[in-house]
Amino acid sequence: MVSCSLERLEDKIKTFSGFGDTGRGGITRFSLSPEALAAREEFVKRCKALGMEVVTDDMANVYATLPGEEGLPAIMSGSHADSVRQGGNYDGILGVLTALEAVETIVAEKIPHRHPIKVVIWTNEEGARFEPAMMSSGVITGKFDKEKMLASKDTEGITFKEALEASGYKGQESNRIDPTKCIALLELHIEQGPVLEAEGIDIGVVEGVCGMINYEFTFTGQAGHAGTTPMPYRKDALYAAVKIIQYLHEELDKLDSKLVYTTGKISAHPNIHTIIPDIVKFTLDARHQDPEVIKQVLAIIEAIPAEVEKCQTGYVKAWARDTVSFYTEYVDLVEKNAKKLNYSTKRMYSGPGHDAQFLMEILPTTMIFVPSIGGHSHCEEEFTPVEACLKGANVLLHTILAIDHNK
Amino acid sequence: MVSCSLERLEDKIKTFSGFGDTGRGGITRFSLSPEALAAREEFVKRCKALGMEVVTDDMANVYATLPGEEGLPAIMSGSHADSVRQGGNYDGILGVLTALEAVETIVAEKIPHRHPIKVVIWTNEEGARFEPAMMSSGVITGKFDKEKMLASKDTEGITFKEALEASGYKGQESNRIDPTKCIALLELHIEQGPVLEAEGIDIGVVEGVCGMINYEFTFTGQAGHAGTTPMPYRKDALYAAVKIIQYLHEELDKLDSKLVYTTGKISAHPNIHTIIPDIVKFTLDARHQDPEVIKQVLAIIEAIPAEVEKCQTGYVKAWARDTVSFYTEYVDLVEKNAKKLNYSTKRMYSGPGHDAQFLMEILPTTMIFVPSIGGHSHCEEEFTPVEACLKGANVLLHTILAIDHNK
Repeated sequence: MVSCSLERLEDKIKTFSGFGDTGRGGITRFSLSPEALAAREEFVKRCKALGMEVVTDDMANVYATLPGEEGLPAIMSGSHADSVRQGGNYDGILGVLTALEAVETIVAEKIPHRHPIKVVIWTNEEGARFEPAMMSSGVITGKFDKEKMLASKDTEGITFKEALEASGYKGQESNRIDPTKCIALLELHIEQGPVLEAEGIDIGVVEGVCGMINYEFTFTGQAGHAGTTPMPYRKDALYAAVKIIQYLHEELDKLDSKLVYTTGKISAHPNIHTIIPDIVKFTLDARHQDPEVIKQVLAIIEAIPAEVEKCQTGYVKAWARDTVSFYTEYVDLVEKNAKKLNYSTKRMYSGPGHDAQFLMEILPTTMIFVPSIGGHSHCEEEFTPVEACLKGANVLLHTILAIDHNK
Repeated sequence: MVSCSLERLEDKIKTFSGFGDTGRGGITRFSLSPEALAAREEFVKRCKALGMEVVTDDMANVYATLPGEEGLPAIMSGSHADSVRQGGNYDGILGVLTALEAVETIVAEKIPHRHPIKVVIWTNEEGARFEPAMMSSGVITGKFDKEKMLASKDTEGITFKEALEASGYKGQESNRIDPTKCIALLELHIEQGPVLEAEGIDIGVVEGVCGMINYEFTFTGQAGHAGTTPMPYRKDALYAAVKIIQYLHEELDKLDSKLVYTTGKISAHPNIHTIIPDIVKFTLDARHQDPEVIKQVLAIIEAIPAEVEKCQTGYVKAWARDTVSFYTEYVDLVEKNAKKLNYSTKRMYSGPGHDAQFLMEILPTTMIFVPSIGGHSHCEEEFTPVEACLKGANVLLHTILAIDHNK
């Protein structure tokens, strides 16, 4: 069976690791920064060398097209090229580079194909410079208001609009992907978690993106001096919070084992070692693919008494998103092609959000995961061996060819 | 029986509340600030009007002396006049004003007395502008190194030495209180806790200052994405910390009911709602008068396993102080005189530290507590009704007279 090239893929990963290199094994490549523009320039150069036509839309999303038979809709693949501060060399960019490698293989091996094949870079997926995350895929799929996005400012006060105008990558709105002229979006991504590596699996067959809820809890007690307030007189907001974190663990652990939940943030006021805290806040992030399980989480939250340890309890929903299920036919096709290549697979849901979940609104979409060593992500330790990346590229290539063949 | 004057005491409290008035019922009167110097000026003026001689020592501690029979040692009373930021009108200053009122009563009522009576203001008890707390009583009792104290800087970079020189209150080292020329130190203070008010008690008979320990705990796990790390793979440092806070509560609650313990400070790293915390720290402050109970607390801390929820645990002693017991004869005398005045009393230990605990090193010392409404202290809500303050002043007056009579 035809295979992508390990050497070429390695060269691509190495080359793009230079754009925003922190010198410590990772990159800082904020959206539309000089480093991100340099990466785009390299991408465009390589695409043109393969005979691809490159256009950009009004959000600076880049579409490079390898022609197919006239009149047929395109098959699209890609991801994002921006990173968080001190991020890694794989998150996002690997989805762009494997798509490019798939096209390069098709060109090099002169593989016949009927449909045009597009490689895409979505602008500002991380939201690390301009909030929110997944900004441009959100705009073109109608999730976000364009004017609001253009007004988003970085920490230096530069608006996204200004950065867009200055980038040289702002194109026509008419260049946005047209759902009537595209039959598939495939996004390859690192898992960003430890499961595939730990279980020795080559390919994550992504069935969708987990629904999630994020709540902020507040406990209000009464401040008092650590040395003068006998225990029975206390209204210790931290102890109330501790009891509820313990309660949440005990109750949530009874739900489906695929549920993940996290208290990542906690604060105590006034946070002085000799003062009993009067206000304590913490967050709860909970994710599961099944909305019924999320409902069970909500029921556990709603069962928290109004008063705990003589402190008032309260909570607000910070945000939530519904589960997105990917296009079943393509999910199955990814699995089938991975197996054909003799790669081990595991069906799974993505915890983090991806551009693909917005694209699923307008296009048949799915994702392919490759392992993240140690589960590291959004840090300089992020790593996936090139051999594992190649397996992902091959699954992508063969899934593209299968869609090309079937449709 | 002779009584201090409610009107005069009320006038004193009201007048001194003007020095550093925040306009919201409290004061900010940092040590050696213009507001603190204005309060000292008013104090000196009032002392001189009563025929007292005023001197200051090299740490700007102020001693005002009402003469007695030549050659006899003095009886001393007083406290501090500085406050924390947005503190109240009673902490410290009430001990100065009730001592002044006791002297004013002796003068006004022409009460015969043999010993000189001194009213003292200790410089920088709060440590709110210059660390540490109880600085000047610490220097004259040999607890603190004077040169280090002089080098202490406020947030604007001004040293304590510079503030001292500029204050006009720096005197001779030879003016420090001489233990051979003083037979008693009595410090009246607000309780700073809720017990006296809650139990309807007029006077706290203070037996000593509780020993305390302060520990900082650290839990080290592994960061991970909230959406990609299945529960069994997690090393959640916050959950480990929560389990140990719960353990400490359960075990410490089995010890003597007078033990107080507090987790006032907690921090999580990186403290982002979508990241599993890898480092969590919290403090434990524990206080009890009996060193045996403190030992039991230590045993409970030492029993914490090295690993909890797959996270490493660690702790360091931030500081500790031993229990200080006050001079039994004077403790009994305070109780006896309070009862003679038909005031209800309760024997108790102080949780917070006071200048008196350092003075006990060189002089027979004790304290008198009056109630703090709602237990509020170190805040603008701090309040003690003037009638309750008067009872404290009367106990102070009669204890001074009893010592004067006995010795």
